[in-house]
This record gives sequence, C-alpha cells and structure tokens, in this order.
Amino acid sequence: MKIRIGIVGYGNLGRGVEYAIRQNEDMELAAVFTRRDPDEVRVKTSGSVQVYSMDRLMDMKEDIDVLVLCGGSATDLPRQTAEYAEHFNVVDSFDTHARIPEHFDRVNAVAERGGRTAIISVGWDPGMFSLNRLYASAILRQGSDYTFWGKGVSQGHSDAVRRIPGVRDAKQYTIPVEAALEAVRNCENPVLSTREKHLRDCYVVAEEGADLQKIENEIKSMPNYFADYDTTVHFITQEELEREHSGIPHGGFVLRTGKTGMNEEHNHVIEYSLKLDSNPEFTACVLAAYARAACRMNRRGITGCKTVFDVAPVDLSPLSAEELRRTML
Amino acid sequence: MKIRIGIVGYGNLGRGVEYAIRQNEDMELAAVFTRRDPDEVRVKTSGSVQVYSMDRLMDMKEDIDVLVLCGGSATDLPRQTAEYAEHFNVVDSFDTHARIPEHFDRVNAVAERGGRTAIISVGWDPGMFSLNRLYASAILRQGSDYTFWGKGVSQGHSDAVRRIPGVRDAKQYTIPVEAALEAVRNCENPVLSTREKHLRDCYVVAEEGADLQKIENEIKSMPNYFADYDTTVHFITQEELEREHSGIPHGGFVLRTGKTGMNEEHNHVIEYSLKLDSNPEFTACVLAAYARAACRMNRRGITGCKTVFDVAPVDLSPLSAEELRRTML
Repeated sequence: MKIRIGIVGYGNLGRGVEYAIRQNEDMELAAVFTRRDPDEVRVKTSGSVQVYSMDRLMDMKEDIDVLVLCGGSATDLPRQTAEYAEHFNVVDSFDTHARIPEHFDRVNAVAERGGRTAIISVGWDPGMFSLNRLYASAILRQGSDYTFWGKGVSQGHSDAVRRIPGVRDAKQYTIPVEAALEAVRNCENPVLSTREKHLRDCYVVAEEGADLQKIENEIKSMPNYFADYDTTVHFITQEELEREHSGIPHGGFVLRTGKTGMNEEHNHVIEYSLKLDSNPEFTACVLAAYARAACRMNRRGITGCKTVFDVAPVDLSPLSAEELRRTML
Repeated sequence: MKIRIGIVGYGNLGRGVEYAIRQNEDMELAAVFTRRDPDEVRVKTSGSVQVYSMDRLMDMKEDIDVLVLCGGSATDLPRQTAEYAEHFNVVDSFDTHARIPEHFDRVNAVAERGGRTAIISVGWDPGMFSLNRLYASAILRQGSDYTFWGKGVSQGHSDAVRRIPGVRDAKQYTIPVEAALEAVRNCENPVLSTREKHLRDCYVVAEEGADLQKIENEIKSMPNYFADYDTTVHFITQEELEREHSGIPHGGFVLRTGKTGMNEEHNHVIEYSLKLDSNPEFTACVLAAYARAACRMNRRGITGCKTVFDVAPVDLSPLSAEELRRTML
C-alpha cells in the first residue's frame, strides 16, 4: 500500500511536494488542505485528488499517513506542527535556526501524547547542510566549519529592497566570495568577516522618474541587510526582471577542514554543495523522503519529535536495506 | 566512562585509529592486537597501552567496548569480522563492494548469536560516498549518479607497475578527468567511458640499464589496470620518489544530478567531495566515529550486522542530541 500524503498549504513548497510525490512510486497524494477557498485551488495532479479547507483536516485522520506542512516558519509552522502532530505523523521545514530547540520541545510533547512521529526542520539548511556539518565534525574532530550560501535568491533581501520608495520590483542574489571558498579549500583556516564571505547583487526595477542614485544609496546602507556586504545594484526593466530573474535558484557549500596524524600533519577537506534551479522544489523533495521515514518510524513505534539527525539513512529510500547494500554501498 | 577501543592489526590503518582516538575525548585505547611479536610493536600513545598477541583477544572480552578491525579485505576481514563479532562489538572497513552482501550475512548471523553489534564497510568508499549516493538518490528520484576517484594513490595499480621487470619502485595516481566532472556539473548527463572518467599517472624508478620504452609500453598496455585509460609514465629517481611521492593522498567526488517540477524543467546538482592527505588516517577517523555508534547501539539492544545506512547520524557525535540541534541543525 502506498504512503498517503496530505499537503497543508499550497504555495511554491506545497506544489513542490505534489511534484515530488509523482516521482516517488511508493507515495500518493491523498489530499491538499488550504486556507483559501478550496474551489479556487486547482491541483496539478490529474485524477481524484481533493482540495479541502483547513478545518476539514481532523476528519481525515484515517486517510492520511503523513502530513507535509508547507507553511512559513514565522507564524504558520510554530502553531501548525505543534497542533497537528498530536493527530498525524508530520514533516515540516521550520527554518528559524535559533528557535529550533523551542519548536522541538513543543512538538515533541504533543507528538508523544498522540503516539505520532514528527520530523521537523527538514530541507537543505536546516536539513542536508546540517547533516553534513554533523557527519564532517564527527569524523574530523580537530577542524573548522564553513557554510556559504548561494548563488541564490534571498526572499527576505528582495522584499527589503522592494519596500524602498521608488522601487517597483526587485530581486536579490546572495553570492559566495570565490576567494574565500578557495582559501577554505586550501586549508588556510581563514577567519572571515561577513563582507569577506558573501556578495549581494540586486536587480531593481525603479518607478518612472525615481532618483536612482538615492535608491542605490538606500540599498547599500541598509543595516543588517546590506551595509555589511559589498553590494551591487543593477537597474533593469520589468520585462528584463521577468525574463531573466523569475526563477528561485539557490544552493551553497558546507566545508569542514581538519587535521589528523601523530602531529596533526595531514590536512583533509570535506565539501558538500548544492546547485538548485528551484529552492522550494528541492526542499519539497527532501520533505518527501523524510515523510517516508516518518511513516516507517511510526509503524515501528518510534514516536515523538525527530530531526534529520535522528533518522537512519536507510529509512529515506524506497529501496530495501538489502538492495541498498547491493547497489549503493 | 570512556569507550574502550581495541585495535586489531597495527599497520597504517591501525595507527590511524590510534591517532583518531587521541582526538576523541570520550574514547580510550584499551589494547592493540598484532600478529607480529608484541614485544617488537611499539605504540605511539604514551602510558599504559598494552600490545598483545592475537591469541590473547578472547581473554580481553571484559576490557573492550568495541574492536576496530584494521586488517585487509582480501583475507583478514572476511575471517576476523565473522569470528570476533560473536564476542565483541566490532567495526570494519571491508571494501570489496561485490562481496558486501555475503560478508553482511555471515557477520549478521554471528553478531545476532552473540548479542553484539557489528558495523561493516565503514570508511569513505564504501562509507561516506555510499551515504551520499543514498541521500542524493532518495531526494532526487529522477537523476543520474557519478562517482570519481582521486587525485589519489592506488595501491593496487602501484603494485602492478612494481611487478614489471626492470621496475625498482613505483607510485600510481588516479586522477578524475576535469572535463567529465564539468559536464556532470552542467547537468549534461554524459555517458562516460572508463577512459573519459579517469587518467592514470605513474611515477617509476627503473633499474639501472633497464629499457625505459619497454617498461612504458608494458604499463600502458596492461589489461584492466591501464589499457583502458590514458596513462602517463614519468621516470624519476628513487630519491625523487621518496621526496615527492611518499604520501598516501586520496579523495574523490560523488555527484547526483536530477530534475524536478511539473515538467521536470528544473535541474539540481548535489556534490560531495573529499580531498585527503592521508587515505588511511581519514578512514580511521570514520571508523572511530562508527565505533562510538556501535557501542551506543549495542547498549540500546540493537544487535546484529549494520552498515552506515543503518546508523542514525546522532549516534556518531560525542555531542548530545540537544547540543547538536542547538549548534549544528
């Protein structure tokens, strides 16, 4: 029997989960839940997939094996995951790093009470990047960690530029500094300032007659967002923005360099990187794999809140342990 | 109480495990077992570490939490792991990929009988590379896998060159072809022949008066080892070989490229790479981390044969689950 997935929230991430389910032969999309009017949401999967209003969720407990929660980390997930984990196995992509311990504790209490399995903070950072930080530091005990993000679109920074008077539309790319990456790869153990790690590149559509110099200055001096970075501002037309910058690419690099040997005379570099055309679709694929694990772990009686650190890799794959040993080990 | 590690076999790998234990504050080296005369083996760790003859192993069952088996995959490990896993928790680096299923089954039966935990085929390939193949394929379900090895020393190929008449000493490097790596990273999904993936570079010290052209021809035409590759042969002096080529570096790349989206219109690249100054010392570090996991899993009653696929990442780190969530997730 296939794993029956329910998607909660049908934005970019929810649609990504829908596409991911189509690529996983052991899963099926059971239902989509939305805050919008369900009649106005049309899912991409042909056939009998129903779209329901959020308040129908509790009626569907018997029809869903895992709920994939596709809301935002600011307000949706802190509430939703902690509520639904009592009644469903759930997976979320909660990504406010500093608040993960608190989110974990709340979800854990609820999931334990309901005998459910919740896997939180699934995606690529937190998620695959976190896993690589853990594996690398467990192996190379004496070493240094580096995470670089990009090249990719930062939604928060794009929004910040859009709020500037005179800006009609904008897109911001975070770009790792190549020289910093190289210094890390060469085991120079550089101590890197914010400015030395990432560049920021802004593509801005100005309102007609706006003062471009003033906009550029406002961007470059914006505290927290841009002031600590080398920032480049390109003014372009709305057409060009839509033609060249409509995607949501992202990615990044996790590196650990470390030393081994009697006198720590040998250097080692572990590097993990992602280059993603679609940030939400990749995150959705990670969520789908961990939904499989949540379902399997719950069937084995492993309940409560988990993270990617607690999940044995074997539980992520549709292949059997035997087949994995034969083909991938 | 610290995890008490026993090392079986004190060659490059065994010494690497000894160094790794020094970097893991929750471990201690309990004993070294050797086939040589124990009086002639001097360990690097100062203090009271004892070196024993192999036949003393069974007397030490109460003094050791995990045995790290550091023998070879051809003859040592198939016998040793399957024998010792009845009496000890064990970790090995069995790396004959094709024979892993058979090794697994034999070790599993023995470990289950003894109530012990055995983790086999630990290292980087099999090991960390295998893990990355599994994670990447579980996430990107539609895609292609590529593994490249090097730049690094192949012991088997170096030995093959040394067996040629007229060759006094030699070292062989396996080198990934940069153009092939680039084609993979660009999501071209290349179908790559053996020759297109790796180069072979040989540094050869010839006997005095040997026919260099003949040696070079013999190397380049050697079936399986060199004939299918673009091979370069450099004749150098013994002094230069010792000065420039005495290390045992290795590494490589695991890539998966895949597609997502309603019409599979988005490309993604997952890349994992290692650049290692010392192949055996890095392998030893991986063994040490999995020795920790074997000890913990056994204490929780998880017995039998396991691989890196079965081990939850949290069990590899000396940090608590809570600390890991707070600092690495």
